[in-house]
Amino acid sequence: MRSISIVGVGLTKFGEHWDKGLKELIAEAGTLAIEDAGIGKVKIQAVYAGCMASGRFNGQEHIGALAADVLGLNPIPATRLEGACASGGLALRNAYLAIRTGEFDVALVVGVEKMTEVDTGDAGFALGGASDAETELFAGASFPALYALMAQAHMAEFGTTEEQLAAASVKNHKNASQNPYAQFRNEITVADVMKSGYVASPLKLLDCSPITDGAAAVVLMATDVARKMNAARKAVEIIASAQASDTLDLAHRNNLYETAAAKKAVQDAYRQAGISAKDVSFAEVHDCFSIAEIMAIEALGFCRQGEGGKFTADGHTAIGGKTPVNTSGGLKGDGHPVGATGVKQAIEAYWQLNNLAGARQVRGAKIGLTHNVGGSGATAVIHLYRKA
Amino acid sequence: MRSISIVGVGLTKFGEHWDKGLKELIAEAGTLAIEDAGIGKVKIQAVYAGCMASGRFNGQEHIGALAADVLGLNPIPATRLEGACASGGLALRNAYLAIRTGEFDVALVVGVEKMTEVDTGDAGFALGGASDAETELFAGASFPALYALMAQAHMAEFGTTEEQLAAASVKNHKNASQNPYAQFRNEITVADVMKSGYVASPLKLLDCSPITDGAAAVVLMATDVARKMNAARKAVEIIASAQASDTLDLAHRNNLYETAAAKKAVQDAYRQAGISAKDVSFAEVHDCFSIAEIMAIEALGFCRQGEGGKFTADGHTAIGGKTPVNTSGGLKGDGHPVGATGVKQAIEAYWQLNNLAGARQVRGAKIGLTHNVGGSGATAVIHLYRKA
Repeated sequence: MRSISIVGVGLTKFGEHWDKGLKELIAEAGTLAIEDAGIGKVKIQAVYAGCMASGRFNGQEHIGALAADVLGLNPIPATRLEGACASGGLALRNAYLAIRTGEFDVALVVGVEKMTEVDTGDAGFALGGASDAETELFAGASFPALYALMAQAHMAEFGTTEEQLAAASVKNHKNASQNPYAQFRNEITVADVMKSGYVASPLKLLDCSPITDGAAAVVLMATDVARKMNAARKAVEIIASAQASDTLDLAHRNNLYETAAAKKAVQDAYRQAGISAKDVSFAEVHDCFSIAEIMAIEALGFCRQGEGGKFTADGHTAIGGKTPVNTSGGLKGDGHPVGATGVKQAIEAYWQLNNLAGARQVRGAKIGLTHNVGGSGATAVIHLYRKA
Repeated sequence: MRSISIVGVGLTKFGEHWDKGLKELIAEAGTLAIEDAGIGKVKIQAVYAGCMASGRFNGQEHIGALAADVLGLNPIPATRLEGACASGGLALRNAYLAIRTGEFDVALVVGVEKMTEVDTGDAGFALGGASDAETELFAGASFPALYALMAQAHMAEFGTTEEQLAAASVKNHKNASQNPYAQFRNEITVADVMKSGYVASPLKLLDCSPITDGAAAVVLMATDVARKMNAARKAVEIIASAQASDTLDLAHRNNLYETAAAKKAVQDAYRQAGISAKDVSFAEVHDCFSIAEIMAIEALGFCRQGEGGKFTADGHTAIGGKTPVNTSGGLKGDGHPVGATGVKQAIEAYWQLNNLAGARQVRGAKIGLTHNVGGSGATAVIHLYRKA
């Protein structure tokens, strides 16, 4: 099977970009990625764009063609992928599959979301399109409410505490404090989380990822072609790509305290790469809410089912711990421009495996994992990486 | 290269479905396609969904997972593609590419749009997301207006007449009158078109495709696997798949009377299949407006640049003519549920090549072409088909 690698990355600062629209965000991240790859934009043969809800946020669809246009890449094929907050991961995966066919050798993957053009209520409604709109969104269940139900189930089943949930946010803010691209660079304490207001019990404001603008891009290439073009110096190979689905609404799940799609996808990914959870040096996981990180590390096999809260509170997911998780700062610390998040996760893997993560560096990192989730878990996309 | 075929198809009636939502439309088309393939849904390994603007139309994103969910296909991967009105074609193309990798052998491709849940103004705004929202939609340029500019350019450059444009609509209504799935089964005359009200000069009401609800689905399989599973009886092979992009807005094009992305994509497709325009037995083209069909047949090489109006008025694109175009009724006659259209085009190719098109049958059809376009031409997706 053809080896495929990330050979360049570009990222905008995540945050509130009042002076930039979708186009400017895409142009910045895309241009930086092409520059980092050092190949010149004429070598790009296809664009894959991840974006969730630009129709509602910006009145703009057709994000693949938009990305090709603002980067001056016409007439190459340009395609948008959408899988709610997993849109970025899907863009990466579909570019990877297309390169595997030999249809292309080089693709630009860009994830983007510009969320601050609407007010918070409208943003919540737009994001609610990731749930089962008929049975959840229109019935009044916001995303914090859906994840709060999962948190309650996890607490009831396993005795997970609010302080343990808070530990995920505390760690992620600490990591974000070392990430110049992060939206929130302030460290917080468990006490800060505990005294922040309830959004949907047991989730408090500091358990929740924010509304964010941002874009992230990577250049993906067949590794042999990258070597021929002298573009493989920082190449990070994708050694597994897997995806699975679950019911869109919570009501039809077997239980609310585990994420079946992520479990399925990660098993597929480990099998593809011939590794197991203990071989993973670090992971970027989809902590849209603190409970999501707890459930993620259980699904990925870093700790046993039900022990994610304790595992986090005990520091095993901190940089220097058994399995560092969200060294970038995660969705909580970095911010969560939904379509960009899955691509940003891959960028952190690229930086870590190239020993470019500065104060966030995981020493001796060999294998990275990204876990990108759509909605309350209906889409899960897992990638594994190692230095090519 | 691996041979890949459509082995089953399913279509809802196109029209106003006041009693069906996104889920019901997907369930109907998807179930019919799986039944037609005769393989049982447990054989489906991935879902690719095409949908343009469900966020604005229905408050629902995450259409890939939704499709897997309503069809009971979890936990297989489910992915949504968006490229404005070319979303269906992109779903077909990405499923095709994924099967080419060997990642899957069998995929379900679903296109859907449920457009009547919002009023006409909001629908126009949602569709405007296919254009460059900043420079076109927000400036007041609706899609009829954008295509009217192209029609004016074509008329000025080549002397194309309003009566010639009308001939495309007249033919497409005639074909639709023989299609039980079509939204409009009434025949119309050139005089009817000419006396219908101007929407954006020179385009009149009967030059414009309508607002439509509908879904279309196909089962796509590696041809050798279909043969082993005795599912290849009606198999129609995809012998080429190509895609290209153009600027999102009209202002940056070299001219307004030709569609560069379609020209690029079709040349790629002809090269892949080793054929030329004269080998095409019939084509489904993207006649969102009558002028779009005229520009399409020129781009595809069925007639010379500038002669599309006369070629149409002379009957060369009618069933029985040199190159029958839009035997299904096209977007004008069948209706245009934007995400479904590209998949419906493939279904007409499947029916024609299986000699199942009834009164619309093109005798001796050997090679079919579908031409699916997003926006005012920024995305073009071309597929070629023959009986496997």
